[in-house]
Amino acid sequence: MEEAKGLVKHMLLARFKDEVQSEEIDQLIKGYANLVNLVEPMKSFEWGRAVSIENLHQGFTHIFESIFESTEGVAEYIAHPAHVEFANLFLFHLDKVLLIDYKPTTLRS
Amino acid sequence: MEEAKGLVKHMLLARFKDEVQSEEIDQLIKGYANLVNLVEPMKSFEWGRAVSIENLHQGFTHIFESIFESTEGVAEYIAHPAHVEFANLFLFHLDKVLLIDYKPTTLRS
Repeated sequence: MEEAKGLVKHMLLARFKDEVQSEEIDQLIKGYANLVNLVEPMKSFEWGRAVSIENLHQGFTHIFESIFESTEGVAEYIAHPAHVEFANLFLFHLDKVLLIDYKPTTLRS
Repeated sequence: MEEAKGLVKHMLLARFKDEVQSEEIDQLIKGYANLVNLVEPMKSFEWGRAVSIENLHQGFTHIFESIFESTEGVAEYIAHPAHVEFANLFLFHLDKVLLIDYKPTTLRS
């Protein structure tokens, strides 16, 4: 079964600490989104709040998806000073985090 | 901060049991993909293996993304007999599962 070459989706699942105010969360999301303007290999950003109805989301409250052209692009992003600075701030506000990267494949049946 | 109306991404993170062979995994992925043909509100399907380099993926090995037009569409999918039958088979082969739905928003900064 073939996997897509290239494109990598970088998914972050987060749960903010209870004491983090919604205005702070908004600011953190804006900071995350702004990385697209600062880190060349980061091609897009989207986010959403969990709206799960099956209760299998293990307490995560937000999802963030960013897309990179390659796994090398993800590595460059992780090491980029703008990301390092943001990640330190962002992670400080989280209770839980899960990060998973994948190369999306659309299976034709 | 506005969230998108409508469109819902349904993300499933999975870790297959160690004894599940790769051919079985391929068949399960084909079965998952085929739900697009059987469940009307399911609009798309993609999957990928975890290629994470940060080691914050908590042992999950595969991600599946399906897109629905609404949260009602997700509810219809969950209750659909074709999904129920597939989910029973699929979950039997998993060690770990995490399901999270969100309405993607692209933030403009």
